[in-house]
Amino acid sequence: MTGTGAPARRVSRRGLLTGGAAAAGGALAGAGALAALRSHGVRPDDAVPVAQVGNAVEPFHGARQSGVTTEPQAHAAFVAFTLRPGTDRAALGRMLRLLSDDAARLTQGRPALADTEPELGLLPARLTVTFGFGPGLYAAAGLDDRRPTSVADLPAFRIDRLQPRWSGGDLLLQICADDPLTVAHAQRVLTKDSRPFATVRWVQQGFRRAAGAEPGRTQRNLFGQLDGTANPKPGVSADTAVWVTDGPDWLRDSTTLVVRRISMNLETWDLLGRADRELAVGRRLDTGAPLTGEAEHDEPDFAALGPDGLTVIPDFSHLTRARVTDDRQKILRRPYNYDGAPTAEGHADSGLVFAAYQADIARQFLPIQRRLAERDLLNEWTTPIGSAVFAVPPGCPEGGWIGQQLLG
Amino acid sequence: MTGTGAPARRVSRRGLLTGGAAAAGGALAGAGALAALRSHGVRPDDAVPVAQVGNAVEPFHGARQSGVTTEPQAHAAFVAFTLRPGTDRAALGRMLRLLSDDAARLTQGRPALADTEPELGLLPARLTVTFGFGPGLYAAAGLDDRRPTSVADLPAFRIDRLQPRWSGGDLLLQICADDPLTVAHAQRVLTKDSRPFATVRWVQQGFRRAAGAEPGRTQRNLFGQLDGTANPKPGVSADTAVWVTDGPDWLRDSTTLVVRRISMNLETWDLLGRADRELAVGRRLDTGAPLTGEAEHDEPDFAALGPDGLTVIPDFSHLTRARVTDDRQKILRRPYNYDGAPTAEGHADSGLVFAAYQADIARQFLPIQRRLAERDLLNEWTTPIGSAVFAVPPGCPEGGWIGQQLLG
Repeated sequence: MTGTGAPARRVSRRGLLTGGAAAAGGALAGAGALAALRSHGVRPDDAVPVAQVGNAVEPFHGARQSGVTTEPQAHAAFVAFTLRPGTDRAALGRMLRLLSDDAARLTQGRPALADTEPELGLLPARLTVTFGFGPGLYAAAGLDDRRPTSVADLPAFRIDRLQPRWSGGDLLLQICADDPLTVAHAQRVLTKDSRPFATVRWVQQGFRRAAGAEPGRTQRNLFGQLDGTANPKPGVSADTAVWVTDGPDWLRDSTTLVVRRISMNLETWDLLGRADRELAVGRRLDTGAPLTGEAEHDEPDFAALGPDGLTVIPDFSHLTRARVTDDRQKILRRPYNYDGAPTAEGHADSGLVFAAYQADIARQFLPIQRRLAERDLLNEWTTPIGSAVFAVPPGCPEGGWIGQQLLG
Repeated sequence: MTGTGAPARRVSRRGLLTGGAAAAGGALAGAGALAALRSHGVRPDDAVPVAQVGNAVEPFHGARQSGVTTEPQAHAAFVAFTLRPGTDRAALGRMLRLLSDDAARLTQGRPALADTEPELGLLPARLTVTFGFGPGLYAAAGLDDRRPTSVADLPAFRIDRLQPRWSGGDLLLQICADDPLTVAHAQRVLTKDSRPFATVRWVQQGFRRAAGAEPGRTQRNLFGQLDGTANPKPGVSADTAVWVTDGPDWLRDSTTLVVRRISMNLETWDLLGRADRELAVGRRLDTGAPLTGEAEHDEPDFAALGPDGLTVIPDFSHLTRARVTDDRQKILRRPYNYDGAPTAEGHADSGLVFAAYQADIARQFLPIQRRLAERDLLNEWTTPIGSAVFAVPPGCPEGGWIGQQLLG
């Protein structure tokens, strides 16, 4: 924690309410995790790791933010905020110092400074908190000239049926962990500490397979498709695809995030035969192999013809339309499933919180999205109902805060 | 699967759409799991267990239903249905044969017969599907004389603020698993197959700690309290508390379930000091020990006085009011947390899907509930907003179906 006044003031105010001001002050003095736990009345025994899933930790500090190339956790809450009028550059600095400190503690399994449920802060379960800056944040800070040009509302696509309740946002917190209670507690702490500065615009909660349920497998969405097969593989070219590697210090080691809420119509999808589904996707549903191959990661052969004289992989298939061969032009898909309550007639409210990371939205995301919007048979069963775009600033060292290169 | 016609007819109808009628027929003939997978185009390799969490199985068939004394899984969907007009005793039999067959397959990691996303049916992750019969089901079947008397709307309590959208129901499916995708898929299959017979009345989804995150610990709710400390311990008296052990065959090995949706006001709770919270609960927040003890399962001493001459554990504490000493009178709490999207001002939509199992609602649940409603300080921060009551019929042997003792 840096020596900024905001969190200390908060703790003092809360401390008066809880009678714990002196103890919380001790934790502030930097005596470390154990002191922080004691100050909250948590016994050291409770902090002893009991199992790998709950105790596993992802780094918070570093040149790049966690939660991007981090192996996706089982649960996510995407929380988008609208800045209150008057939240200017200085206020944004205070807000981000406070939220960075909360995130730095919670991700390492320590309660936040003003944590009113400290016992819920002890199991990190690979918690990551990833900060994204929407166009409105740059405007509020008077720094519109520092906004990456393509961090702006996406152009309208004919397939879009966007709803304001799932769209836009000045600040995004992507909160991910392998434990749903850990996500809920982090969401609570971070939302509370954002209140003086911002209102909640939307929250999208999602899930993937549980930790340890199917290790090493590509995730499946609620259509049963493997989702994420074409992600860039770790390495130099993937680095270039995801991260900005040069420019001023508020851009170097940054990335961008597109969040799209994709409603998936299970009612009509379920009426489709298996062979037709595989033509729409261009891949086998069981293995995820291209229709011309045997295994998930086989190279598709777009020229191969079937007995009917047509290409085995149709031109309108999702595989064909989404295809990018140059690793540097790929996007990193990090989607989560959502599944709300069905209607009275039993129609599902299911879909995907589609999250894609890429160094440059204009260069990487938009060409793919244009090809998909133009002609992807999957559009028959999917509808984008929300859209938001964020710059994901560089990480921060210990003692620093997210956004300091831009706002500090 | 018994030799009833309903599922076979469904498969044939679906088979015509999917071109898989012959293969599905093969599975029907009982060639087992592998054949069922092949019939869905799933390769045997995909069915090989890859990890404990995803592959762990709870029994479906047996004298008693699973999902009651089963160690609680991480995720749950409580799905309540309203029977359509005309769903009589015979139709209920067809519905329950079909749903029992779906549940028998899915819980064992096999796709349902008419499964349109069979790949999502391969990871059971300790899936259980527990059937509950509301008062309306007995009425629809013309069997009101077989309804346990206390399976009826609970009396009104002054603390209640019940909303129809979270209350009542003719049939309940409690779907629990350690993997959220497994729960979503089972919810989808069972809801689809219920459509000819019933509409969806409400769905309540909830979570506990992830599998393996904190093994062997009592769960915490979003107030940070340990929840379930006083559950009956396995053994003869616990058996009597949970299960009906005599009577006609539609009652023997049955139990009852009360589902209450309890909204928890984190805004006002978070204003309360730690000492005041512990007085309201009667226990320490960190260890869950009674205020007069050291460890979670220590016996509370209600006579012990503090330096101020008052009892250490106040009479208005939740511990005092909920206290039951006779194991046979205890209820088995099996609650799940819920956490919706906060309001624009950041106020949480959090609470508990409180689920309690007991042999007799009138004898066990109601006295506790009356004492709590009368005088439990926790009422200041909690509000019951939904309520539903179900008989949980006995289990069924292989080839049988849930409800056969009552309806068959």
